[in-house]
Amino acid sequence: MDEETLKNAAREYQTPLYVYDGDLIVSRYREFAKAVASIGSKSRVFYAVKANSSLAILDLLRREGSSVDCVSGGEIACALKVGFKPHDILFTSNSKTREEIASAVSAGVNITCGNTEELDVVSEVCAEAGESARVSFRVNPDVDAKTHPKIATGLRDTKFGVHFEGDIAFNAYKRASELEGIDVVGLHAHIGSQITDASSFVESCEKLFEFALRLKNELGMQLEFIDVGGGVGIAYKKDDKPLSPEEYAKALEPAVKAGVESLGYEPTLYFEPGRYIVGPAGVLLCSVNSVKETPSKKFVNVDAGFNTLTRPAMYDAYHRATVLGKKGESETYDIAGNVCESGDILARDRALPKVVRDDIIIFHDAGAYGMSMASEYNMRALPAEVLVKDGVTHLIRERGTQEDLYRKQKTI
Amino acid sequence: MDEETLKNAAREYQTPLYVYDGDLIVSRYREFAKAVASIGSKSRVFYAVKANSSLAILDLLRREGSSVDCVSGGEIACALKVGFKPHDILFTSNSKTREEIASAVSAGVNITCGNTEELDVVSEVCAEAGESARVSFRVNPDVDAKTHPKIATGLRDTKFGVHFEGDIAFNAYKRASELEGIDVVGLHAHIGSQITDASSFVESCEKLFEFALRLKNELGMQLEFIDVGGGVGIAYKKDDKPLSPEEYAKALEPAVKAGVESLGYEPTLYFEPGRYIVGPAGVLLCSVNSVKETPSKKFVNVDAGFNTLTRPAMYDAYHRATVLGKKGESETYDIAGNVCESGDILARDRALPKVVRDDIIIFHDAGAYGMSMASEYNMRALPAEVLVKDGVTHLIRERGTQEDLYRKQKTI
Repeated sequence: MDEETLKNAAREYQTPLYVYDGDLIVSRYREFAKAVASIGSKSRVFYAVKANSSLAILDLLRREGSSVDCVSGGEIACALKVGFKPHDILFTSNSKTREEIASAVSAGVNITCGNTEELDVVSEVCAEAGESARVSFRVNPDVDAKTHPKIATGLRDTKFGVHFEGDIAFNAYKRASELEGIDVVGLHAHIGSQITDASSFVESCEKLFEFALRLKNELGMQLEFIDVGGGVGIAYKKDDKPLSPEEYAKALEPAVKAGVESLGYEPTLYFEPGRYIVGPAGVLLCSVNSVKETPSKKFVNVDAGFNTLTRPAMYDAYHRATVLGKKGESETYDIAGNVCESGDILARDRALPKVVRDDIIIFHDAGAYGMSMASEYNMRALPAEVLVKDGVTHLIRERGTQEDLYRKQKTI
Repeated sequence: MDEETLKNAAREYQTPLYVYDGDLIVSRYREFAKAVASIGSKSRVFYAVKANSSLAILDLLRREGSSVDCVSGGEIACALKVGFKPHDILFTSNSKTREEIASAVSAGVNITCGNTEELDVVSEVCAEAGESARVSFRVNPDVDAKTHPKIATGLRDTKFGVHFEGDIAFNAYKRASELEGIDVVGLHAHIGSQITDASSFVESCEKLFEFALRLKNELGMQLEFIDVGGGVGIAYKKDDKPLSPEEYAKALEPAVKAGVESLGYEPTLYFEPGRYIVGPAGVLLCSVNSVKETPSKKFVNVDAGFNTLTRPAMYDAYHRATVLGKKGESETYDIAGNVCESGDILARDRALPKVVRDDIIIFHDAGAYGMSMASEYNMRALPAEVLVKDGVTHLIRERGTQEDLYRKQKTI
């Protein structure tokens, strides 16, 4: 997106503002889908809604042929609202309420169970409703994804998935195959997010195929799909070297080919990219309220905070920051958010051109886990979102208002 | 609140649910106000709205005679809505928009500036509107509050306040005294949150009085108030030994007495408790969706996550957890949130009675920085809130709905 577009968007819709590049979202989706198709097996892409659950973005991806991976009843509701078919929706969460499960069963969504008790609830719900459910399990592959501990989801001690160890996963499949109303359709692992090392993906994929072979040999089970999850990282820093979808696909290819050959049938491969598709396609624009010099630092105080962009405070995450319409690196600043906590520093020790009040700071690569994690903490209304597509800037979410802050509340 | 009350609240309003004890809020407010009054100087209590910005709680405290400390235009709007008078509102934020400042000036709210550029904006706004503003500065006292780094706000390198060093604070006051439309009324420091060590409070208080003396001697300035901030901690763990308001007041007393004597006049002392008032008066109730045993751990999967209670994921915070209606410590569990991230563990390695599906877990001391930090991440609607007062349970915030999740959104 060129600077003129961003300037106009900030002028028209004010800041803080999330701006997404719809053309880039589409091209990244296509690049990813093409790369995983090149592995040679049947493949489907399930966009991970939690990365950015904007209806407009979901709709854009639906029109591209994407399916979706949802982690809650709310995400499923959003997906259905924009027109995804239930069979194109996966419901994968470590902790689902009975109501969420009942809605998913009645809609006909694919349910990925995270433990055997959840399977029991699915089965109970099916019995009550006289329906059946398409079920898979998330397994815990005990693979180290070498990413931030808070988003490494495939390790032995995490809350995710049924373990191979102690035959927990095997017994879960066995039990599922015996239960009324349960159609066992797939097998899933997801080892984490923002991963830049292909070997962890390969290791997880090999374990999935090995396990599918055991399910075939010992239970006579043939799976419709193997879901290898998401987690392909992006470049947040200039010198980051993330995996390209092509490298990712190439790395998986031998494991898939060997797996399919030993399996004797070809399950469809499911992929769940989220950050990869939308991360680099979004920026957060915020305005400079004041610039302040202290004896030890210079601070740029902006009109956004960790309620707007949570990743720096939550994960010590790095987002590139630039000044709209300015070049050079003449000063070093901390960019301070407006939340009343010391931890609310959006960027530390950044070389920027001289910043003055009313300048606009661009936080890059904020398309994923930006708006989706935003809150109204400190009673600041949620930001607006715009989507730029084919040269046109569309408001896709109106800015929150002060009335929103006390909606549904009453005094006694 | 007794177990019956909590059980009924969960049954009537479902989970996740924040439940507040209004009687305890009132008694803690009274205890705090009485303790600081015992110092012997005129004193006022400004409840820190960011801790819990529920309108019903604000209204309860207003009726007790509390004033409020606000950090945003949104918090000010909430305070005005429940009937606080502008003069009983402080506006203290490190980064204020021009619009927030304009609203504060036009309402007549006390403005605490965090840097000199903000002072310029206040002055510009006053000139444009033909109004004047009651202004103080937050100073950076360079005091180590010995608390979590993300909430230690009085250190030299934080974004908060004008520094004594290099005469930055002095020059700010000098400039303020010369500007049209600016009434310099006070002096403020806030060294952090969840502080259990009195010596940091004393050190900060001494520095404030010393500086007030310099302002008197060199600028002939007499302040209406000295605002010593908030930060009195609470017991999250059973064996925590927080300061009582009485101990806090007793610790400050010598510094205040000596300060007033050397100053030769008596500024009103302002206090800004937040967590102390509401923290122990709130619990989060959540339901158990499933219990899962892995080779290394047992997990209790609940229907809340870090989108409901952010503190464990954000600050590694500890909240006591118990099981409603059950006693004993027969098993060790991790209580896992429903957010799709490994970091979403609400409590680790807790000894609890045997937990089964549909049990209700109580997270204690969740009245502060619980609901105020909640988000709709993972597209889960915001929880409901109830306030129990004089034996009656009042719904003070309706549960969010799925429609809320896509309010204000549209596709293109």
